[in-house]
Amino acid sequence: MRPLFNKAFMKTLLYIALLASGSAPLLAAEDDPLPSWNDTASRKAILAFVEKVSRDGSPDFVPVPERIAVFDNDGTLWAEQPTYFQIQFALDRVTALAPQHPEWKTTEPFNHLVAGNTKAFMAGGEKSLMAVIAATHAGMTTEEFSKTVNDWITTARHPKLGRLYTDLVYVPMLELLAYLRANGFKTFIVSGGGIEFMRPWTERVYGIPPEQVVGSSGKLKFEMRDGKPALLKLPEVDLIDDKEGKPVGIQLHIGRRPIAAFGNSDGDLQMLQWTTAGTGPRFGLIVRHTDARREWEYDRTSNIGKLDKALDEAKEKNWTVVSMKEDWKTVFRTP
Amino acid sequence: MRPLFNKAFMKTLLYIALLASGSAPLLAAEDDPLPSWNDTASRKAILAFVEKVSRDGSPDFVPVPERIAVFDNDGTLWAEQPTYFQIQFALDRVTALAPQHPEWKTTEPFNHLVAGNTKAFMAGGEKSLMAVIAATHAGMTTEEFSKTVNDWITTARHPKLGRLYTDLVYVPMLELLAYLRANGFKTFIVSGGGIEFMRPWTERVYGIPPEQVVGSSGKLKFEMRDGKPALLKLPEVDLIDDKEGKPVGIQLHIGRRPIAAFGNSDGDLQMLQWTTAGTGPRFGLIVRHTDARREWEYDRTSNIGKLDKALDEAKEKNWTVVSMKEDWKTVFRTP
Repeated sequence: MRPLFNKAFMKTLLYIALLASGSAPLLAAEDDPLPSWNDTASRKAILAFVEKVSRDGSPDFVPVPERIAVFDNDGTLWAEQPTYFQIQFALDRVTALAPQHPEWKTTEPFNHLVAGNTKAFMAGGEKSLMAVIAATHAGMTTEEFSKTVNDWITTARHPKLGRLYTDLVYVPMLELLAYLRANGFKTFIVSGGGIEFMRPWTERVYGIPPEQVVGSSGKLKFEMRDGKPALLKLPEVDLIDDKEGKPVGIQLHIGRRPIAAFGNSDGDLQMLQWTTAGTGPRFGLIVRHTDARREWEYDRTSNIGKLDKALDEAKEKNWTVVSMKEDWKTVFRTP
Repeated sequence: MRPLFNKAFMKTLLYIALLASGSAPLLAAEDDPLPSWNDTASRKAILAFVEKVSRDGSPDFVPVPERIAVFDNDGTLWAEQPTYFQIQFALDRVTALAPQHPEWKTTEPFNHLVAGNTKAFMAGGEKSLMAVIAATHAGMTTEEFSKTVNDWITTARHPKLGRLYTDLVYVPMLELLAYLRANGFKTFIVSGGGIEFMRPWTERVYGIPPEQVVGSSGKLKFEMRDGKPALLKLPEVDLIDDKEGKPVGIQLHIGRRPIAAFGNSDGDLQMLQWTTAGTGPRFGLIVRHTDARREWEYDRTSNIGKLDKALDEAKEKNWTVVSMKEDWKTVFRTP
């Protein structure tokens, strides 16, 4: 007699259910969900946390709507050396816009950039950077800005590695994002970078839709342009989503406390504190840049992505510290 | 011979797929998804729009991630008379807090409220209201405020109708929210009300999670309290999510333009303009308060929920205008 439920048929049934759910938790559990991770303590800690919050009947079970995970972007999901990629975008914009701004030739700090004197420009520090960001990120509509970002991100190349910036995302972190989502997590970016700089490409690159991107934001102004509504980007800053600003951004945009946070620098310290201080199971993770050969090596004294206080607190609070060199089989996708 | 796929078994299979997908589009299409709506032009317009954007192969098909629908709250999802319920909350807080604030007896505008002279208080207009909101909504942590809102919303009763405020949500709009979600829409609230005032109960009442609530917001401050991180609510306003502020709030929190907007007053005009000015299929809807018997009747000259310019523009832009009296079988849930 032919059994009513043969193996092939059960497989079909399972596939229908998986297709309908839009995710593949069962397959993820069967196959290795984190193939680019070595079988070290970091990987084990991730798997154990996800298992205990998502398994029915687990004493640490967390209902799906509460499974909120937040990820820093620069240095956590993609590289950030020799400088944040958004700074490179702003500098490239100055070059592109210079012909329309003859006054920049004699205006600090633009004159240094127009003359190609990066060193003199960098001596101006954060103030110079803010001036460049204000001049290149404001005065246009959100849709114009989005198009500018898209044009840049699909063509510009990293000055040292010669690859598209979106090729410099970390494969193990992409796997981690997918693994969390397959287990009912909603994944958010919480970055010091500009919210409008990230949104045009995060869905395509990370699978994170614009409404799940939290970042630094500027004021916007609604106005009618030729009878059509537009949102104009103003040069005033609204929120700096970094350090103490990260829990503020989380509350403003998400409205509940995450149960897992992933960062790489002291800029993520308060986000890690806020996330892991909640009741119930919590997970904090820091990506440590230990791989001078495949990526970069830096921590306590770096200008970009300084990791000092958060590294000390990780030990105290039992956060997982990932060593790129030891824990990751792969860093970037093979070109 | 027993057929391999009998009807009961196919039904079970369908159920598994539906459970896995977390929604029931097929069932919704079979049964009436909007049972509290009369079969009028408004209902037909809603059904036609949802069908054309969600049916595979439709020339107006919109991919699921782009199916963003935004709803005003006061007067659109729940009632707003004789005044916005959040104002009632603030006034109730003054009464509750008065014993700890003896200085209010002699401080404008609190003195009027302490003396029970609502008329004198109301004469102070928006300035008085803002003072009361600042005094009752700030100076505590987000978690303390959330608890205060929860305590109030589960016990306080409407001064005229004697019902819980959450009983004064519109049943036809709850059906509409569920119908949109069953067809792949993500539903957001975009309200002039306080974001932190709504989030504690919108998931339970509307099925809208905190991260999909956009509202007016105040500044927050991250600080350590007895070694534990906390977010303190400051009295400074950050965004007034009303009129021109609504498209700004949409861009800040959602980051893409909705394809459908639902409002009831001139406060929603710019949200409707912004939503319906996008390319591709768009839907604008205004709930008009025409039912003095079952709810309230007001429009062009009302202090609360004034509907004047948006009503004129609805005609010009072909937005659907719902008449509560004609289009709704039911307004509130039967007590």
